[in-house]
Amino acid sequence: MPDKPTLCRVHFSPDDRAAEVERGETVLAAAQKAGIYISSLCGGDGICGKCRVIVRSGDIQSKPTTLLDRDEIRRNYVLACQTTVQGDLEIEIPPETRLEEGQILGDEDAERFGMLSLVEAAGFPHNPVVRKYHLKLEPPSLQSPLAGHERLYQAILEHEPDANLQTGFAVLRDFNRILTATGYEVTATIGRRGATTEVVQVEPGDTSASNLGLAIDIGTTTLVVQLVDLVGARIVDSEAKYNSQMKHGEDYIRRIMYAEQHNALDAMQRLIIADLNELIEILVRRNSIRVSDITCAVVAGNTAMIHFFIGLDPTGIRKEPYVPVANSIPPLRAAQVGLHINPRGILYTLPSVAAYVGADITGGAVAIRLDEQTDLSLFIDVGTNGEVVLGNKDWMVTCSASAGPAFEGVGVEYGMRAARGAIERVRITPDFGVLVQTIGNRAPRGICGSGLLDLLAEMFRAGILARNARFDASCPARRLVRRDGNLEFVIVPKDQSAVGEAIVITQADVSNLIRSKAAIYAAIATLVKAVNVKIDDIRHIYLAGGFGNYLDVRNAITLGLLPDVPPERIHFVGNTAVAGARAALLSEEALARIERVARMMTYIDLMTNPKYMEEFVSANFIPHTDVERFPSVAGPRTGTAGSG
Amino acid sequence: MPDKPTLCRVHFSPDDRAAEVERGETVLAAAQKAGIYISSLCGGDGICGKCRVIVRSGDIQSKPTTLLDRDEIRRNYVLACQTTVQGDLEIEIPPETRLEEGQILGDEDAERFGMLSLVEAAGFPHNPVVRKYHLKLEPPSLQSPLAGHERLYQAILEHEPDANLQTGFAVLRDFNRILTATGYEVTATIGRRGATTEVVQVEPGDTSASNLGLAIDIGTTTLVVQLVDLVGARIVDSEAKYNSQMKHGEDYIRRIMYAEQHNALDAMQRLIIADLNELIEILVRRNSIRVSDITCAVVAGNTAMIHFFIGLDPTGIRKEPYVPVANSIPPLRAAQVGLHINPRGILYTLPSVAAYVGADITGGAVAIRLDEQTDLSLFIDVGTNGEVVLGNKDWMVTCSASAGPAFEGVGVEYGMRAARGAIERVRITPDFGVLVQTIGNRAPRGICGSGLLDLLAEMFRAGILARNARFDASCPARRLVRRDGNLEFVIVPKDQSAVGEAIVITQADVSNLIRSKAAIYAAIATLVKAVNVKIDDIRHIYLAGGFGNYLDVRNAITLGLLPDVPPERIHFVGNTAVAGARAALLSEEALARIERVARMMTYIDLMTNPKYMEEFVSANFIPHTDVERFPSVAGPRTGTAGSG
Repeated sequence: MPDKPTLCRVHFSPDDRAAEVERGETVLAAAQKAGIYISSLCGGDGICGKCRVIVRSGDIQSKPTTLLDRDEIRRNYVLACQTTVQGDLEIEIPPETRLEEGQILGDEDAERFGMLSLVEAAGFPHNPVVRKYHLKLEPPSLQSPLAGHERLYQAILEHEPDANLQTGFAVLRDFNRILTATGYEVTATIGRRGATTEVVQVEPGDTSASNLGLAIDIGTTTLVVQLVDLVGARIVDSEAKYNSQMKHGEDYIRRIMYAEQHNALDAMQRLIIADLNELIEILVRRNSIRVSDITCAVVAGNTAMIHFFIGLDPTGIRKEPYVPVANSIPPLRAAQVGLHINPRGILYTLPSVAAYVGADITGGAVAIRLDEQTDLSLFIDVGTNGEVVLGNKDWMVTCSASAGPAFEGVGVEYGMRAARGAIERVRITPDFGVLVQTIGNRAPRGICGSGLLDLLAEMFRAGILARNARFDASCPARRLVRRDGNLEFVIVPKDQSAVGEAIVITQADVSNLIRSKAAIYAAIATLVKAVNVKIDDIRHIYLAGGFGNYLDVRNAITLGLLPDVPPERIHFVGNTAVAGARAALLSEEALARIERVARMMTYIDLMTNPKYMEEFVSANFIPHTDVERFPSVAGPRTGTAGSG
Repeated sequence: MPDKPTLCRVHFSPDDRAAEVERGETVLAAAQKAGIYISSLCGGDGICGKCRVIVRSGDIQSKPTTLLDRDEIRRNYVLACQTTVQGDLEIEIPPETRLEEGQILGDEDAERFGMLSLVEAAGFPHNPVVRKYHLKLEPPSLQSPLAGHERLYQAILEHEPDANLQTGFAVLRDFNRILTATGYEVTATIGRRGATTEVVQVEPGDTSASNLGLAIDIGTTTLVVQLVDLVGARIVDSEAKYNSQMKHGEDYIRRIMYAEQHNALDAMQRLIIADLNELIEILVRRNSIRVSDITCAVVAGNTAMIHFFIGLDPTGIRKEPYVPVANSIPPLRAAQVGLHINPRGILYTLPSVAAYVGADITGGAVAIRLDEQTDLSLFIDVGTNGEVVLGNKDWMVTCSASAGPAFEGVGVEYGMRAARGAIERVRITPDFGVLVQTIGNRAPRGICGSGLLDLLAEMFRAGILARNARFDASCPARRLVRRDGNLEFVIVPKDQSAVGEAIVITQADVSNLIRSKAAIYAAIATLVKAVNVKIDDIRHIYLAGGFGNYLDVRNAITLGLLPDVPPERIHFVGNTAVAGARAALLSEEALARIERVARMMTYIDLMTNPKYMEEFVSANFIPHTDVERFPSVAGPRTGTAGSG
C-alpha cells in the first residue's frame, strides 16, 4: 500500500484559513500554523478540554478522552490537542473554542470606574518621566564662548537645577549640527534614568507641545496599551488584544514550562513584543501621530510577564524557592527590547515585590493611593492569582493566593472572559426564573466573572445552593436538573443560547469558583491575622481585576469573597495595573512612590504558612464556615433562615 | 599617439612597497596608498617643503618650487605633493622625509621624570574608576527569597553603600545564568557613569585580581597608550606611535580643514581608532592578557583630537568664535567609538576647558597637583600650541598661544621630533667647537626640541647670536658660514652626519624658534599681569611637552622661554597628559579633581588681548627686550658683558 501524502492541508471554518502540516501533527498545531488562536488552558496536555473543534471531513486519529460526552462525539467533536491530522481536513471551530477579542478595559472603562479621577486627582504633581523643553539658546560668541554641549546643559538646568545630566552617544554626535542649523532654537527631551537625567533627543524648533507616552499592562491574558498625552495629561486612545502567548498555555506557569522545554524564551518574548507593536501601530495610525513623538513607555504586569517581556529567564518563578531574576528593572532604551516607539525612547518597568507579587500590584497600589492612606486599607487584584495587599502609608504586607482562573471563566464549563456575548449580570426571580444581561447585548455565549459572582450569590439567596456550596436537591427550582446523575442549573436554555445548547453551571463549576473565592478570602484573613488587626479595622477595600465592567460588591460579600464590611467601604476599581503605569508616565513622583511601595511591601509566603490552609478550608462555605464573620449575610430566602 | 597606460605602479625604496595609482595622481597620494607616511606639514599645499623625495626612474610632472635648491633638483629631488605620476616610477624616500617611530615618552620615561612618584605619591586614594568585587552570595531560599538582581546589588552595596547602582541591558539578561551556574560566586565589575555606578559585567568565579585599564594620550603628533594594572596601581606596559592623521596635515587646524573639504570626519576618526587599536593589540599580545580584562580607558588630548576621536565635528574649533561641540564628554561605552577593549568597558574622556585648552591640560594640571598648591604655580605645556596655566588650589587662569611647532622640529630646516638620531643636547666649547649627543647614540639626522633649546642658549652665550636673535657676523666662530649670502651655523659637518649633508641652523630657523619662545613667554607674562601678580610670586614652574627626554631648564631661562626664577623652582615633567589619564584611571577622586579643575579654570583669550601682542613683540629678543626681567642671564661670554 502506498504511503499517504506526507503534507496535509487543514482548512478551518468559519475563518476560512488553512495550513499545510505533516501527517501526524496535531490539529492544535495546525490551527496555530494557520494563525487561529484556540482556547487551550493546559497548553496541549489534553486535560482542560477547552480546545474542542468539530471535524467536518477528513481522516484523523484521536486519543480517548473523558472530556467529551457521547453526544459531542456523535457530532464529531474532538480535542484539537489530542487529535492528529491523517489527511486533508475540514475543521470547524465552534464559538466557545474561539479566542475572540474581549471587552477589554480601555479608557472609557477607566473613566467609568472613576480611575481617571482616581489618578488625575491623586495629587501627583504633573511632571512626566520624560519631558520636553523648548530652548532658545544664545549662540556662542567671543564674549560667550561656552561649548555647545555645556550651553545645552545650562539651558536645561535653568528648568531643572538639580538634574545630573547625561548624554548618550547618538545625541552627543548629533545635537550640535541641529543647534547650528536651527540658530540655536531646539527642543530637548529629557528623561530620568536612575540618579541621572538623560538628554534623550534634541530636535529642531519647538516640538514641546507634542510629547506622548505609552501606559502598558502586560496581562497573562490581555495586553492593554494606552496612548497618553504627557503635556495635556490625558488619555489619547487605548487599544488591547489577547496575549499571543496563550497558545502555549493559559497560565504563566505552563508558559514557563513551555519556554524551558522548547528553549523558547526568545520566541516567547517576540510574541509579546509583536503584540505590543501591533497595538502601537494601530494607535499611531488611528491618531495620525509620529512614532518619534512617543518618547517613553511605562510597563506593568505580573513578574512572569515582565520576565518574558524583557527576556529574562522566568524559570526561578515556578521552582522553589520561587525567586525571580529581577524585581527592579532599570530604565532601558525601548528599542533594546524591540518596542517600536522613538528609537531613543525610554522604557520604564514598574518594580515587582516577589515572584508572585508583580509590577501590576505595586503600580495598582499607588494608583489607588494606598500609600497615602492613614486608615487601614485592603487592595485585592483577582486573576489567576489573587494578590492581596493590606496596609497604609506606613506599612504594607502582601501575599498571593493560587486562586485559579475560575473567575476569568476558565475551569467553568460555560465560563468565558468578559467578551461580547458573556453574561455579566444575573438575577434570580422569586419563582426561580433567571434574568441575564450580556456584554454587547448579544445572545449569550457563556458567563464571565461578574456574572458568575452574581449567579452564585443569587443561587445561594434563592436556596438553590446550600451553605456548603452544594446544590440543594430539595429546591423546587425547575432549572435545577440532573444530567448523567449530577445536578446542574440551567442559566440559559438551549433555544436562547448562541452556542446551540443550554448554558448551565455544574456542581464542579461551583466547586471551582468556591475554591477560588476561598483562596482569596483565606489570603485576606491570613494577612489580617499576621499583622494582628481586625477585619473591621479595614476602612477601604479596593477590588481590581478582569471580572467585567460591573461588579456587585454586595454579592461579593454574600459569597464570602470579600469580608463583611459596610458596602460603602468597598470600591471596584477595574484595571489598576494600567492606571499605575499611567500615573508613573505622568508623574516622576508617582514612579518614585511606586518604587518606594515595592521596597516597603513585606511579602508573606502562603505556601509555607499553616494558618493559610486552615483559613482556606474554613472558607469553602457560603459565605464561610464561621457565619459570625458575616453577620450581614442572610441565609437563603427559602429553606431555613440564616443565623446572622 | 596611443594613450599611456592609465594605471601606474609606483615603487618606494628603501621600504620596498608599491602602489598602483591612476596617472595624474600625486606621488604623495601614491605613498599614502602604499602605506608609507611622508612628512607633510602643510597637508599637500606645497608650502612646507617637507615631503621631499628622490625620483630614481620614471616619468613625472612637477610644479616649480622655491623649496628645492638647484643642487637638489639636479639630484632629482621633488616635492611629493607637487609631483604627479605619469608612468611607472621608482621613488626613494630620503631619511629626513621619513616619519619614523620616535623616542616616545613611555613608562620608563615617566619613571625617569619622576612622574610615577608625582602621581602615585600625589595622595589620590587608590580607587579605580572601574573596580572589581569578588562576591560570594548566599543562594536564594524560602527564608531568603530576594531576587537575583537585588541580591547582587545588596552584595555590591556592602562594598559601596552610597552607590546608585544601574545595570545595562546585556548584563541584566546575562547575570542570573552566571550566578546560578557558579553557585552564586561571581566577580562584579562596576564603574562610575555620572551620578550612577554601572554594573559593567558579571563574571564567573574570582577574576578580581585581574583588572586593567588604558591611559591614553591622543597627541596631534603622537599617540601613547599605557596599560595599567588597576589592582596593583602600576604601569604594566606602554606603547606609542605617530598619529596617522599626520598625512592630512601636521597641525590640527589643517586637519580640521581637510576633514571639512573632503567630508572626512568619519575617516579622520577611523585613523585614530585604528592607531589606538594597533597599539592595544601590541600590548595585549606582548603581555598575554585577555582583552576582556581591560575594563576601561581614560583619554586625554587637546580639544581637536578629542573631537576627532569621539567623532564630533571640530569645525567650531578653527572658526570664530572658536567654540567646540563639547568640553565634557560623558562616559561612553568604549565599543561605541570602536576601541577594542572589553565590549562593555567604559570610556572616560577627560574634560576640556575651551577650543584651545584641552583634556591634556586639565589632566596634566591635576597630575602635577596644581590644584593642591597653596603657592602660586605655573604649568606650561609646549607643543604646537603652548598652553599655560597659572594658579593654585583656589583659582586658575589659562590661555593658549600659537607657538608653532618649531620646538617639535617643524619649521626648522634640520629640525625633527625626538626620535632616534635626533640631537638632544648641544654644548659649544670656548673655541666654538660643538659637542652633540643624539638619541640612541646614532649618527645625527637632525635636531629636536631640547637640542634646539641648548643650541640657541649656547650660541647666545658664545656670542654667535646677539640679543636681537641675529647671527653676529663679527663672531670669529669658524662654523658660522655663509650660504647664498646668508649666515648659518654648522652643527654637524657633512662627514659626521647621517643625511649626506651638513646639519645647520639658519637665521630663518632661529627666528622661528624665537617666535615660538616669545609666544610662550608672552602668554606667561599676559597671564601674570591679568591676575595682577609678579613673576617672583610664582613658586613652582612645571614645564611639560615633547622636547625630548632631557631638558636644560637653565637654558630655557637663558633663552627667555621661561621667566627668570631660581632654577630649583622649575620642574621638567614630561608627558603630563598621559599622567593625568593614569591618575584618573587609578582614582575616582583624581577624575573628580580633573573635572573640578576644568570647571575652575578661567580661559583668557590671547587673540583678542592687545597686551599679549605687546608682550610678544618685546619677547622677540634673547632673553627679552627688557633685560631687567632676566637679572640672572649674563650676556655673551665674548663681546660686551651683559648688564648683570
